[in-house]
Amino acid sequence: MAHIQKMLDAHPWPGNVDREVLATCIEECFACAQTCTSCADACLSEKDMVTELRKCIRLNLDCADICETTGRVLTRQTEYDAPLTKAQLETCREACATCAAECERHGEMEHCSICAEACRRCQKACDALLAAMK
Amino acid sequence: MAHIQKMLDAHPWPGNVDREVLATCIEECFACAQTCTSCADACLSEKDMVTELRKCIRLNLDCADICETTGRVLTRQTEYDAPLTKAQLETCREACATCAAECERHGEMEHCSICAEACRRCQKACDALLAAMK
Amino acid sequence: MAHIQKMLDAHPWPGNVDREVLATCIEECFACAQTCTSCADACLSEKDMVTELRKCIRLNLDCADICETTGRVLTRQTEYDAPLTKAQLETCREACATCAAECERHGEMEHCSICAEACRRCQKACDALLAAMK
Amino acid sequence: MAHIQKMLDAHPWPGNVDREVLATCIEECFACAQTCTSCADACLSEKDMVTELRKCIRLNLDCADICETTGRVLTRQTEYDAPLTKAQLETCREACATCAAECERHGEMEHCSICAEACRRCQKACDALLAAMK
Repeated sequence: MAHIQKMLDAHPWPGNVDREVLATCIEECFACAQTCTSCADACLSEKDMVTELRKCIRLNLDCADICETTGRVLTRQTEYDAPLTKAQLETCREACATCAAECERHGEMEHCSICAEACRRCQKACDALLAAMK
Repeated sequence: MAHIQKMLDAHPWPGNVDREVLATCIEECFACAQTCTSCADACLSEKDMVTELRKCIRLNLDCADICETTGRVLTRQTEYDAPLTKAQLETCREACATCAAECERHGEMEHCSICAEACRRCQKACDALLAAMK
Repeated sequence: MAHIQKMLDAHPWPGNVDREVLATCIEECFACAQTCTSCADACLSEKDMVTELRKCIRLNLDCADICETTGRVLTRQTEYDAPLTKAQLETCREACATCAAECERHGEMEHCSICAEACRRCQKACDALLAAMK
Repeated sequence: MAHIQKMLDAHPWPGNVDREVLATCIEECFACAQTCTSCADACLSEKDMVTELRKCIRLNLDCADICETTGRVLTRQTEYDAPLTKAQLETCREACATCAAECERHGEMEHCSICAEACRRCQKACDALLAAMK
């Protein structure tokens, strides 16, 4: 997703957050949203397991929505509001950590294993951006 | 939006939060998302003012995304996760309070005045639900 | 949702579509998005039936996303683009009709019965707006 | 976005569309959604030009919402519905073509030039997937 960095470089608003850390976090948010949407759907296709996977499906759907919104909020530079951005990042890291922990409980299913990794990467990217914003 | 309450009544998962407080919060989230989408667009149409309204537009877009995601997370009852729900509600009340304060700064424009009211109603509904969850 | 009509009345862009037909369609889109999100989740909670309800869940999720996007596109008045609006409306009526037909297949479950009604109302509102745009 | 392909490979539902064409289209939808969100915001920051860029901003916002929804619908494999998928793809290619044409009108601004390219890539990916589905 080189396009994220290129768009940040072309943006007229003078941002004051490390652009690489920011671009990585935006990328991980969109990647996690897509992966969680995919994992919810893959779990739904697990015919004999779907009842056991209900918590995973529900958290996947929440995490997808939250990561997508976080990716959009972070993408916007104009009239940046630090407290709101931090609140959104903290909710996102909570969603990713919760979803990852559930996916890891049945990591023998490859889609859950891949999804847990995507959630952990996004959680770390949120932590890194929160640290860079201080 | 009587449909929100009817769907909660028909839901097989045994929720333990006050259903009326929950339904009101879901309703205000979706109403605020729609109103903020509308206000961002109305501000964009204010030909001679749009430069002054950039902060309002940006916060409207963030608030619309955050309220919509909050409305979706709250709608889901299956395998309810209290800490994640609370984190999302706290971010939502922050978004609504921030957006309302900006809209109130130019309440002489009717769309901003209506939008500020929608944000304040949603903020209060989030507070009420957070209180009911304790 | 009186707020939809009030925001349209306060909007500076001179729209040329019947405002009541438009407001009804926006309202039904958001109501259908919420109801489909709720029905997907209620189906997921139907412990012994969830495998049979997978098609319903999947269509509910698609219909929720499509209705929400349609509600946002219709809310925007600035520099209105008729062909794009029509394409989105036609996709939305297709999503609502497909989801309603599936929900009606198991209307003995109250959440599916309520959801089918919401989808049919939204489908009709899309038809009415498409007719008003000609 | 190697994760899209990996998740499709791990999915238990037996898809019958070319997986590489599908993965590319999902990737371009999410990339276009992010780029359009970024372009709308960058246009909003163009202090002296924002009035001239209103059509671009509005189409960017529509295109972001439509591409995101398309990316989600395409990500879901369970109980795939061909007519609904095609309708969504056709609306998406219309949104991308309309937004690209507007961005190309002021390609001297780098963010619009990058965004036009993202829209054209997504439009082509939708065309390729529509062709593969016949």
